[in-house]
Amino acid sequence: MATVKLLTDEEADAIPEVKAVFDDIRATRGSDFINNVWRALANDPKGLKRTWEHLKSVMAVPGALDPKTREMIYIAVSAANSCSYCVHSHTAAARAKGMSEEEHGELMQIIALASMTNGLVTALQVPVDPEFEVD
Amino acid sequence: MATVKLLTDEEADAIPEVKAVFDDIRATRGSDFINNVWRALANDPKGLKRTWEHLKSVMAVPGALDPKTREMIYIAVSAANSCSYCVHSHTAAARAKGMSEEEHGELMQIIALASMTNGLVTALQVPVDPEFEVD
Amino acid sequence: MATVKLLTDEEADAIPEVKAVFDDIRATRGSDFINNVWRALANDPKGLKRTWEHLKSVMAVPGALDPKTREMIYIAVSAANSCSYCVHSHTAAARAKGMSEEEHGELMQIIALASMTNGLVTALQVPVDPEFEVD
Amino acid sequence: MATVKLLTDEEADAIPEVKAVFDDIRATRGSDFINNVWRALANDPKGLKRTWEHLKSVMAVPGALDPKTREMIYIAVSAANSCSYCVHSHTAAARAKGMSEEEHGELMQIIALASMTNGLVTALQVPVDPEFEVD
Amino acid sequence: MATVKLLTDEEADAIPEVKAVFDDIRATRGSDFINNVWRALANDPKGLKRTWEHLKSVMAVPGALDPKTREMIYIAVSAANSCSYCVHSHTAAARAKGMSEEEHGELMQIIALASMTNGLVTALQVPVDPEFEVD
Amino acid sequence: MATVKLLTDEEADAIPEVKAVFDDIRATRGSDFINNVWRALANDPKGLKRTWEHLKSVMAVPGALDPKTREMIYIAVSAANSCSYCVHSHTAAARAKGMSEEEHGELMQIIALASMTNGLVTALQVPVDPEFEVD
Repeated sequence: MATVKLLTDEEADAIPEVKAVFDDIRATRGSDFINNVWRALANDPKGLKRTWEHLKSVMAVPGALDPKTREMIYIAVSAANSCSYCVHSHTAAARAKGMSEEEHGELMQIIALASMTNGLVTALQVPVDPEFEVD
Repeated sequence: MATVKLLTDEEADAIPEVKAVFDDIRATRGSDFINNVWRALANDPKGLKRTWEHLKSVMAVPGALDPKTREMIYIAVSAANSCSYCVHSHTAAARAKGMSEEEHGELMQIIALASMTNGLVTALQVPVDPEFEVD
Repeated sequence: MATVKLLTDEEADAIPEVKAVFDDIRATRGSDFINNVWRALANDPKGLKRTWEHLKSVMAVPGALDPKTREMIYIAVSAANSCSYCVHSHTAAARAKGMSEEEHGELMQIIALASMTNGLVTALQVPVDPEFEVD
Repeated sequence: MATVKLLTDEEADAIPEVKAVFDDIRATRGSDFINNVWRALANDPKGLKRTWEHLKSVMAVPGALDPKTREMIYIAVSAANSCSYCVHSHTAAARAKGMSEEEHGELMQIIALASMTNGLVTALQVPVDPEFEVD
Repeated sequence: MATVKLLTDEEADAIPEVKAVFDDIRATRGSDFINNVWRALANDPKGLKRTWEHLKSVMAVPGALDPKTREMIYIAVSAANSCSYCVHSHTAAARAKGMSEEEHGELMQIIALASMTNGLVTALQVPVDPEFEVD
Repeated sequence: MATVKLLTDEEADAIPEVKAVFDDIRATRGSDFINNVWRALANDPKGLKRTWEHLKSVMAVPGALDPKTREMIYIAVSAANSCSYCVHSHTAAARAKGMSEEEHGELMQIIALASMTNGLVTALQVPVDPEFEVD
């Protein structure tokens, strides 16, 4: 269904640059499972490495926001961008990082509300209040 | 700039249904400030009331997610939906509810990352892994 | 502010292909006013002609839907696509073709509602019911 | 395929708040059929009730726009927001409320045209004509 | 799965206006294959003709950009607009017109990068530098 | 207008991590001009560095696609994502890298056409032809 071939483990292992990234994904996540997005990206080893390292530096490094909150924000963006795959993969990730069903329900309602007011404000072309300006 | 007139306080006070909503916004927020989106919506008193009550029931009621996190999710959706007004108003709201500049910086980077992988996954049409399916 | 120059009447009149389209816009609309989108498109006379003729064949020809309804649908799409210019120009057009403020208010609420359920359904990845399938 | 379980009638009936909404959907529509979006939302009874009551107050109440036109606007927004489920469900609803195939064809062409000029105007960053400003 | 019936060759041949367009698609492309979008559009013969002639005049006419580059731009827009069908059909078209896998990989990385900075800039509401203004 | 302060050269020079990135932007581009997006990102030095290095590795490295084509693809994505700033900055960049006005006009027409068929195909929910599947 993808517009490129999804590389099998055998095919990935045959390309050293790909193997190195797949090994790092497995080590970082503590799991053998490599999901399809990486198998698709593996057709372009440089792109695979760039994407993985970018993602790892944002999502897998301690900071002000906890891992669960990061995944919930990721779901919100992915839903607004209509990325079906990303909604699925990051909903699974958020649950794995502790999102409760109650939190998921609230997230859904915030996405719904924000989408509603986004549509409304854009349809009305409301000008930004000077009170919201920074500087 | 809006496609409707923005009602002044005087005009709003002259319409009982609008006055009631504006009073409730002021009471709920503990502030006299009524931002432009409500002044635009006030042209349709029923729509104003429906939108405010929906928003209040999602954002101003205690639940599993704290107010700051809710606003950060709101920013994420608004950015992905290209709603300039909404990004401005909810960034101000998130700061008012305690979002630090470090948290804002991380939020920006998660929005950036998610937008990137959303675009990439859609361009590659990656199929959902069966491992992500619920049920 | 545009990424191309907006042609003045003088500049437009100097290019026969552009003049012909501007003349047709004026005749079709019964007005001397040429709005900015056509002045921007005039940098590419072939693109100008193609766009105008496409628009005219969809919007200015009698059919099953009346002109006011067509403009309201145009507003709905333009808001969902975050096209500020298009929301402005087609709201003006819808009013010129008879849209009442009550109708405008209802249109805003349908856009708001649809945006909400669009966001919600995408965030939940709800599968299409077989009952909705055609054929 | 959804990121939550779709509740069966049996499961829905076991939760009084869900049962009440499902009963109201059936009564309002005069049909026993409950489509998947409500079965997904039923995982969060408060969210289900909020969404249904919002939708009912916009779509199932008499007003300036007739039910068929409301559904056609809903389709337009849903298409622009790439909500596959919503396009399917509201196309079925519009047909049930009397949309002819000729009207559907014209709707498709207006969505196509608006999407085209939305893309073009955004790519050219055309500034809003002062003639379109309200106030 | 479409919201309209997909016309078979037999059904298409029975409608002279549809047959004429299908014949022209086959002649222009030098192939007997008619893909689904045309079979769906064939329900509205005027819309079919308008869409095909618009597409042909932009894509199948010599100009400053070569056919392969045109298709790569088409993929980029289609991915950003989350049009699954369009990403599939234009990726196939780009390959048929000579896009190498290396070029495809670079295209994917530019789409990813642009999506990232688009999201970031919108989330930060960065004002346009005067240096970028035309005129 | 941004939701963060835009750092001046003086403020940027006071933060070694920011200064290093600004120096590299100037050296890579052979110009003293630092546009606003980098001044906004400079509030988060790590995010600034990550974004710049990602961008540089995709756009400023020789590959299969020439710099002008890369910028035109960037414009296409930015327009579809409604990023006003990005359309402006990358249109300027494409012109600086040799895009002619004729090429710009054709780019606009492809964006318009793709947006049109994207909207149409999504509104019709056309299923992908098996002929387009890879593998």
